[in-house]
Amino acid sequence: MNDLYVIKIGGNIIDDEKKLSSFLRSFAAIGENKILVHGGGKLATRLAEKMGVEQKLVDGRRITDAETLKIVTMVYAGYVNKNIVAQLQSFNCNAIGLTGVDGDIILAHKRKHPVIDYGFVGDVDSVNAPLLKNLLTQNLSLVFAPITHDQTGQLLNTNADTVAQEIAKALCGNYEVSLVYSFEKPGVLLDVNDESSVIRKITSSYYDELKIPPSGAGEAKIFAGMIPKLDNAFAALKSGVNKVIIGKAEELDKLLKGTAGTTISNE
Amino acid sequence: MNDLYVIKIGGNIIDDEKKLSSFLRSFAAIGENKILVHGGGKLATRLAEKMGVEQKLVDGRRITDAETLKIVTMVYAGYVNKNIVAQLQSFNCNAIGLTGVDGDIILAHKRKHPVIDYGFVGDVDSVNAPLLKNLLTQNLSLVFAPITHDQTGQLLNTNADTVAQEIAKALCGNYEVSLVYSFEKPGVLLDVNDESSVIRKITSSYYDELKIPPSGAGEAKIFAGMIPKLDNAFAALKSGVNKVIIGKAEELDKLLKGTAGTTISNE
Repeated sequence: MNDLYVIKIGGNIIDDEKKLSSFLRSFAAIGENKILVHGGGKLATRLAEKMGVEQKLVDGRRITDAETLKIVTMVYAGYVNKNIVAQLQSFNCNAIGLTGVDGDIILAHKRKHPVIDYGFVGDVDSVNAPLLKNLLTQNLSLVFAPITHDQTGQLLNTNADTVAQEIAKALCGNYEVSLVYSFEKPGVLLDVNDESSVIRKITSSYYDELKIPPSGAGEAKIFAGMIPKLDNAFAALKSGVNKVIIGKAEELDKLLKGTAGTTISNE
Repeated sequence: MNDLYVIKIGGNIIDDEKKLSSFLRSFAAIGENKILVHGGGKLATRLAEKMGVEQKLVDGRRITDAETLKIVTMVYAGYVNKNIVAQLQSFNCNAIGLTGVDGDIILAHKRKHPVIDYGFVGDVDSVNAPLLKNLLTQNLSLVFAPITHDQTGQLLNTNADTVAQEIAKALCGNYEVSLVYSFEKPGVLLDVNDESSVIRKITSSYYDELKIPPSGAGEAKIFAGMIPKLDNAFAALKSGVNKVIIGKAEELDKLLKGTAGTTISNE
């Protein structure tokens, strides 16, 4: 099977023109099949402020009301997506910008929650793998904004990490898939305050060790905030993803070579 | 050769939710290969006002400065494009939203003009017909926002009529192409003030007759404002487009059947 990289890029890189351009240059240089998933950084928040749309938070969680959905659709699927694709074209990478609604690629449903109404937030139901494969076969690099739809004409705002993971899982049957989360940190840290404490490799058995406090008492060896991310990574491996890589967006080529960041795999 | 409809939809339909929905239902029902090209109606203007971006006009022509480009990219390629695609999906039409930058489909250059700087306005250089053909072969209906690029990473605002025409011309070798301009008028009118005076069929020889004033004096039979549109239509025919149809968006199915609107063809 051929290799496929599914790469999520963090919002802080989107906000930094120079870092983004350098990241896209590295992305363009990848010779294998590749898919980029992006959000919108702080641009959506800034546009909302300019338009006088208040951001609604419930229990610290952002709610996507109709006006916010309009803004994220404009910023993510319009401004950010098309500018990324144009830059990739200038680096001789034939990219195509997509959302989950295009070609019915990602079908989702509005999140049901017993207490909180998240608004127009989508949880993924299915991914159109044959179309993704066909596009990749034409040597296109796919660039996704995390907007999905529910088949009734409703767009839905969807977590970009989830979109990357669902795409990676859906293509496991056709490719050796590496799922890459690139953000501002150099990887999974043993000590959250020490950027040089990157754990280079985490297997399932080592992860169990990291989660359990030494001799069953005190604090776990690993920062608690990383646990949901790592649980997700192991769930992806369970679904057939070959490996998950977490690390700094500026070191994309090193992350793919395995000389930087944290690699999470079964062996 | 199979049939292909390339349909440009006018801005006034985009602005009217009910009319748009009814139009999209008719579009979804077309059994042949189909491509829709849209602009953004008044939404872009309204967003510009909300954001306090002044519209610049030089000699009555709109100038696309950097802020305006940002707005049209957000509105056309983001909001309008993705909402149209989502609606088409709800009508069981597997649509994919695109711009000229995606898959390098429409390469353009910034307009050069001896006097006026139009800003980020693109004139089309080439169309990637093989990719369009491949997408159509997968039973996808293509929905285009009129944004192009120049290969240096620069997005360009491009006239939607021109985008439709260039796509139609590029696919003549692969399909029997009908180019449809749907807008608020029922067709080309013999008397601009009488909506019942639709000319049903215009051939090249009849057009010559229409342009020339009777017995070489007085006014031409046809409204002068239609002449550039018709000149463009005949140019499209010359490039291999099978026919050009002009008529009301609400009558799309009749336009395609030839029972409404004006059909422009060589015979």
